[in-house]
Amino acid sequence: MDRVKTFVEGFDEALGGGIPKGSIVLVAGTPGTMKTALTFSILYENVKAGSKALYISLEESQEDLRAAMAELGMSGLDGMELYVLDIGKIRLEHKEEELAKNWLEVLRKYIEQRVKVNGFDLVAIDSLAALYSLSHFEQPRRDLFHFFGFLKSLGSTCFLISEVSSGDGGKLSTFGEEFLADGILVLRHFEKGETDVQLRLRTVKMRRARHEHGYYALSRNNGKFQLTRAISE
Amino acid sequence: MDRVKTFVEGFDEALGGGIPKGSIVLVAGTPGTMKTALTFSILYENVKAGSKALYISLEESQEDLRAAMAELGMSGLDGMELYVLDIGKIRLEHKEEELAKNWLEVLRKYIEQRVKVNGFDLVAIDSLAALYSLSHFEQPRRDLFHFFGFLKSLGSTCFLISEVSSGDGGKLSTFGEEFLADGILVLRHFEKGETDVQLRLRTVKMRRARHEHGYYALSRNNGKFQLTRAISE
Amino acid sequence: MDRVKTFVEGFDEALGGGIPKGSIVLVAGTPGTMKTALTFSILYENVKAGSKALYISLEESQEDLRAAMAELGMSGLDGMELYVLDIGKIRLEHKEEELAKNWLEVLRKYIEQRVKVNGFDLVAIDSLAALYSLSHFEQPRRDLFHFFGFLKSLGSTCFLISEVSSGDGGKLSTFGEEFLADGILVLRHFEKGETDVQLRLRTVKMRRARHEHGYYALSRNNGKFQLTRAISE
Amino acid sequence: MDRVKTFVEGFDEALGGGIPKGSIVLVAGTPGTMKTALTFSILYENVKAGSKALYISLEESQEDLRAAMAELGMSGLDGMELYVLDIGKIRLEHKEEELAKNWLEVLRKYIEQRVKVNGFDLVAIDSLAALYSLSHFEQPRRDLFHFFGFLKSLGSTCFLISEVSSGDGGKLSTFGEEFLADGILVLRHFEKGETDVQLRLRTVKMRRARHEHGYYALSRNNGKFQLTRAISE
Amino acid sequence: MDRVKTFVEGFDEALGGGIPKGSIVLVAGTPGTMKTALTFSILYENVKAGSKALYISLEESQEDLRAAMAELGMSGLDGMELYVLDIGKIRLEHKEEELAKNWLEVLRKYIEQRVKVNGFDLVAIDSLAALYSLSHFEQPRRDLFHFFGFLKSLGSTCFLISEVSSGDGGKLSTFGEEFLADGILVLRHFEKGETDVQLRLRTVKMRRARHEHGYYALSRNNGKFQLTRAISE
Amino acid sequence: MDRVKTFVEGFDEALGGGIPKGSIVLVAGTPGTMKTALTFSILYENVKAGSKALYISLEESQEDLRAAMAELGMSGLDGMELYVLDIGKIRLEHKEEELAKNWLEVLRKYIEQRVKVNGFDLVAIDSLAALYSLSHFEQPRRDLFHFFGFLKSLGSTCFLISEVSSGDGGKLSTFGEEFLADGILVLRHFEKGETDVQLRLRTVKMRRARHEHGYYALSRNNGKFQLTRAISE
Repeated sequence: MDRVKTFVEGFDEALGGGIPKGSIVLVAGTPGTMKTALTFSILYENVKAGSKALYISLEESQEDLRAAMAELGMSGLDGMELYVLDIGKIRLEHKEEELAKNWLEVLRKYIEQRVKVNGFDLVAIDSLAALYSLSHFEQPRRDLFHFFGFLKSLGSTCFLISEVSSGDGGKLSTFGEEFLADGILVLRHFEKGETDVQLRLRTVKMRRARHEHGYYALSRNNGKFQLTRAISE
Repeated sequence: MDRVKTFVEGFDEALGGGIPKGSIVLVAGTPGTMKTALTFSILYENVKAGSKALYISLEESQEDLRAAMAELGMSGLDGMELYVLDIGKIRLEHKEEELAKNWLEVLRKYIEQRVKVNGFDLVAIDSLAALYSLSHFEQPRRDLFHFFGFLKSLGSTCFLISEVSSGDGGKLSTFGEEFLADGILVLRHFEKGETDVQLRLRTVKMRRARHEHGYYALSRNNGKFQLTRAISE
Repeated sequence: MDRVKTFVEGFDEALGGGIPKGSIVLVAGTPGTMKTALTFSILYENVKAGSKALYISLEESQEDLRAAMAELGMSGLDGMELYVLDIGKIRLEHKEEELAKNWLEVLRKYIEQRVKVNGFDLVAIDSLAALYSLSHFEQPRRDLFHFFGFLKSLGSTCFLISEVSSGDGGKLSTFGEEFLADGILVLRHFEKGETDVQLRLRTVKMRRARHEHGYYALSRNNGKFQLTRAISE
Repeated sequence: MDRVKTFVEGFDEALGGGIPKGSIVLVAGTPGTMKTALTFSILYENVKAGSKALYISLEESQEDLRAAMAELGMSGLDGMELYVLDIGKIRLEHKEEELAKNWLEVLRKYIEQRVKVNGFDLVAIDSLAALYSLSHFEQPRRDLFHFFGFLKSLGSTCFLISEVSSGDGGKLSTFGEEFLADGILVLRHFEKGETDVQLRLRTVKMRRARHEHGYYALSRNNGKFQLTRAISE
Repeated sequence: MDRVKTFVEGFDEALGGGIPKGSIVLVAGTPGTMKTALTFSILYENVKAGSKALYISLEESQEDLRAAMAELGMSGLDGMELYVLDIGKIRLEHKEEELAKNWLEVLRKYIEQRVKVNGFDLVAIDSLAALYSLSHFEQPRRDLFHFFGFLKSLGSTCFLISEVSSGDGGKLSTFGEEFLADGILVLRHFEKGETDVQLRLRTVKMRRARHEHGYYALSRNNGKFQLTRAISE
Repeated sequence: MDRVKTFVEGFDEALGGGIPKGSIVLVAGTPGTMKTALTFSILYENVKAGSKALYISLEESQEDLRAAMAELGMSGLDGMELYVLDIGKIRLEHKEEELAKNWLEVLRKYIEQRVKVNGFDLVAIDSLAALYSLSHFEQPRRDLFHFFGFLKSLGSTCFLISEVSSGDGGKLSTFGEEFLADGILVLRHFEKGETDVQLRLRTVKMRRARHEHGYYALSRNNGKFQLTRAISE
C-alpha cells in the first residue's frame, strides 16, 4: 500500500510508514495546538519531495498564513507546487455562489475543479469550524456524509482541521464526523505540574495502517517537527 | 443451544462457547478501536469454516475495506462466500429509493432479499452511525425497534457496529438501542500511565450465554485476534 | 402485611420478609445486569410455590426467553401457571389498536383483561424502554402517572424492568418515574480493580418494608440467585 | 417566635427550638430516603400534642400510607385530628376540575377550603413530583411563585416533599423553587465504604432560625426518629 | 473614591475600604447562605450611620423579614431611614401594571420614583430569582442589560441577591449577568470533613477596588457579621 | 514581523517579542480576573509610547472606567491619543441604528469610520458578552465570522474581552469563536490551598508567534503589570 510521508521525525515509523494514500485525516485539537503548522508542514515537505498540494485556508489570509509558516522556517513557496488559497480568492472566483452562500457546495465545486486541473496529491481544509460557520446545513450529518464521500472520491490525501472548542469535554468534532474519517490525529496540551504545558499528539485512528496508539510529545526544532516518546516526570 | 464461534483466541471460552446463533450483537467503541477489523474477522473465520456471510459497509468502499483486511492477513476473499457491499453499489441497484433516501427501508429490503436468496448465516452492518446519517427518522426509537425486530426475524447472527462519539460520556449508542440488542461488546482504549494506550474488550451483555464480564486485552498477532486477561501494571 | 417472597437467597431477609404484596417495583440497571433473569426468577419461584404469574416480554420472543431461562435452570414452564407473552401475540389479539399504535393503552387493556380472567398474583413488564419506544406520549409524566396508577389498582405485585442507558450519569428512569414506584431495585456492575466486574444489587426504596440499604453481591449458583454481603478486597 | 416541634430527637435543638411556625419547608431527597415517613411523623407527633394536620398524598392511597405508617409505629389515627387525603378522594369531590385537569388550581382550592373549615396547623403535600405530573404549567416559575405565595398566606406550617431524581447532579427541585421555600431539609444516602449506606439529614436553610448546617445521621428506633451527629468511621 | 462601608468586621479592610459608591453588587449563593441577612445588615448598619436605604423583598413579607432580622439583632427599624417593601405593597401601588405583569418594568418605575423622592443611598433587591419568576423576557440578556444600566444610572449603591440553584455546577447567575455587575460576592457552604459545614465569602470581583480574592469564613456573633481568614483544619 | 509590545513585565519575552501586529486577540476570563485592566494597560502603555488607541466600553461609562484605571495608576488620559468611548456616546451618534438595535452592525460602522479618520493602531472592545446582549443574530457563527473578518481587515491590533461565565466548564467563548481569533489569552483564578487565590495568565494561542504555553502568575505592582513564573507551593 502506498503511503504519504509526514516527514515528522519519528511519526512515519509510528504510523508504520506514513499515512495511507487517499485517506481523509481529521487533525483535531483545541486552540493553539499547532494544527495548522503541523498540517501545513506535511504538505510543504511533500511538495519539496515532488508532490503537488493545495492548502485551503478559511481562517487566515494567504499573506498571514505564509508569513506565519515562513516564521517557522517554511518559506520559498513561490517556486513550489504548493498552492495556498484563502477564502477571499475563492469568493472572487465563485461570486454567484457566494451570494447564495451555500459554502459547502462552493468548496466542493472549487476543489473538484482544481484537483481535476492540477492533480493535487494532497489537499487540506483549514478549518471545518470555519466551513461550518459559512454553511447552511439542512441535515448536517447527511450533508457531511456526502461531503466526506466526495473528498474520498478525489483520490487525494485530505487533511481536515477540526478546531475542538474549549470546555466541550473531549468532543473531537461538531457533528460526530469522526466515523467518516479514515484517520484521526489529536493534538492536546497536557498540563505538567501546575504551570507547565506540553504539546502531545495521538493517532487515534488510521485505517489500513498498524499504528502506535499512545501519546507522543510533539515539538518543532530547527525547522522540523519531531515526535518523541512523551515522558512525564 | 447453537453457537457462532468468534475464532478470537480466548474469547469463545469467555462467552461459554461463542455467540448464541441468531443474536443481534452491538459492537460499540470510540474511533480507532478496531471495531471493523474484529467484526470482519469473525465473519471471515466463519466463512473459512463453511458459513456464508454478508458484510455491509456504509463507510468504506469495497476496495479499501478489502485492502485494509488483507493488510491484517485476511485475504483470499474472492473464492469465499463473503459478500462485501458498499453503499455505492447499493445506490446503483436502488436508484429510485436513493432519491427518496429512506435508507433504513432500502437497507431492510436489500438485506431481506439477499438473505432469502443466499441464506447468510452472518450479517454485519458497518456502521449504525453511517446508517443514521442517511436516514430520516420520524420516531427514531420506534423505527429502530422495528428495524431490530426485522433483523431478529432473519435468523442470522447480526453484528451492528456502533461508533461511539468521543466526549459523549460513555454512551454506547445514539438512541439508547442497547436494550434492543441481544449482545453488546465494548471496545475501549485504556490509558496506561500517562502515555500508553491498551485496547480492551468487554462483553457487557450476551443473552442466553453465561459469559465473563470483566475487561480483556485485545490484540492481533500472526493474523489472529487474541483475548487475554488484561493486566494493568 | 403480606409479602411476596423473592426466593433469592438472603434477599427476603434483607427486605424484612419479602416484597410487600401489591407493590409496583422498578428493576433498574444498565445492559447485561440480569434484570430479566432476576425478575423472571422471582415469578418462576412464586409460581412453583403456588402463585399465578404473567410475564410480558416486549423485547424477546417467547421462544428466546424460554430458552434463555431454561439455560439458567428455569424450565418446565408448560405445566405451570406462568404465562409468558411476547409482543407478537399481543399484536394478534389487538389488531385494531396495533394500527393506532397507542401501545401504552393496548398494554393497559391487555393486562386489565388478563388479570380479571386469570387473577395473576404477579405481573412483569420487560421492559419500559421497549414500551416507551412503542408509545406516543402527549404528556409523558402525566400519562405514566395514570399508567402506574392503573397497575396499582390491579392489586397484583408488578415488576417493571427499566433499562438504564449507558452514559446517563445514574438516571434510573426515562421520565423520573422513580417516585411512582413503591420499590426500586438497582442492579449495577462494579469494577473491581481495573479489569474485574462484580454484579451488585441495592434496594433503593421499598415502601412499607424496613429493608437494608447497602449493596449486596448478586450471583447465580446451582439454579438459584444468591445475595451476599458485597466484599471488596 | 413560635416554633413547630419536629419531635425528632435531637433535631429541635439543632433547629434552635423547632421550625418557625408558618414556614414553607421543602423536604428534598432521592428515592428511598424516608421523606414521607419523616414528614408524616412530624405531623403525627404534633397531632398527638394537640395540633391539627392535613396530609395530602398524591402518590399513595390512604390505606397504603396508613399501613406503611402503622408499620413504623404510627397508628391510632382514627381518633386523631390527622386527615390523610389521597388524590382519589379529591377527584371525587372535584369532578368538574378533574376534567379540566388544572390540578395546581384544584389543590389550591381544596387546601384553601379545608384550612378555612378545619384550621389546620400543619399541611403536607406528598409530593411535588406527583403534583407537577398532573399540572399544565404555562409558566412554571411564575405559577409556582404564586402557589407558594398562596401556601404562605394560609399561616399553616407547610411541608412539600420534593423527589430528587437520581442522576440529576444534586438538583433539589424541578424548577429551582428552593428560593421560594423558607426551609429546606435534604435527605441523602451516604455510601460508607463500598457497600454500606447511611441516611443523613441536613438543614440547608431555615429562615428565622439559627440552625446547625452540618450533616446528621437520621435513624428510626422504637417508633421515634433520632438525629445524631454523623460519625464516619 | 467614595466607599460604602459594609460594617462587616474585617470585610471593609479586605475591600480596601469598602464597596465603591454607586456599584451594582451581585450577592450570589446557594440556599441558606445568609445572602438576605448579610445584605440587610449592610443596609441596616449604613442607615444607623446616617444613610438612607431601600430594601425590596420579593420573597418574604415585610413582617417576616423584619422578624427574621430582629432575631439576628437588627431591630428598631421604625424610627430609621430603612424602608422595607414587599411585593404586596408594590402591587397595591402599581395595580394597573400588575395586571400586565411586566414586573421588570413595574420594579423599574417603582425604584425610579422612590429614589427620586427619597434619595436612597443604598437599594437592595431580594431576589433576582423572584424577579425573573415574575417577568416575561423577550430577550433576557438584552432586557437585563438595560435593567442593570437603569440601576447604574440611579447613582445608588445596589445589591442584587442571586439565588444560585443547587446542582447547577457553580453558575452564579441565570443569564450570565455577572459581567453586568460591578461587584460579585459569593457565599458558599464548605464541607469540612464529612459532616461539618462552614460558611465562606469570596469577593470574586469589585470594580475600582483592590480587594482580596481568597475565601474568608463568615460568621455572626453578638449582632455583628465577622469575616475571618478561613482556616481549614 | 512587527510586534505590539504589551509592556507587561516578562510577557513580551514570553511572546517572543510581543503580539504580532494586526492580530485579533481574545482576552478571556471569569469575572474579576482583571481582563479590563490588563487590556486597558496594553493600550495605555502603547499610547504613552506613541501609538493611537481606541477603547470601546460597552459595560462601564467613560467616567467609571477612567476612575478605575486612574486608581490603578493609569491617569493623564486627556493629553493622550487614547480614546475611551462608552455605549452612551455611540448611541448619541447612531440614533437611527439604535432604534433598529442591530448593534453588531452599529459597532462595525462606528469602528470603520473611526479607524479611517484616526488611524488607530490598537482597538479594544469590552466586552463581547455586552455586545452579544445587544445583538440580534440570525446565524451567530456566520455573523461573527464576518465581524471578525471585518476587524481583521482594519489592520489594527484588536483586543476582544470575553467574559467567561462561571460554571460553564471552561468554555472560553459563547459561540466557539476561539478559532476566529489569532491570539487567545486566558486569565484564571487558581485556588491555592483551600482559601487563597492566585491570578494566572496563559497564552493559549498566538498565531505567528513562538510563545510560551504554561501558566504565569499575573500581578500589578507599582503601576505595572508583571508576569512571573507561577510557583505553587
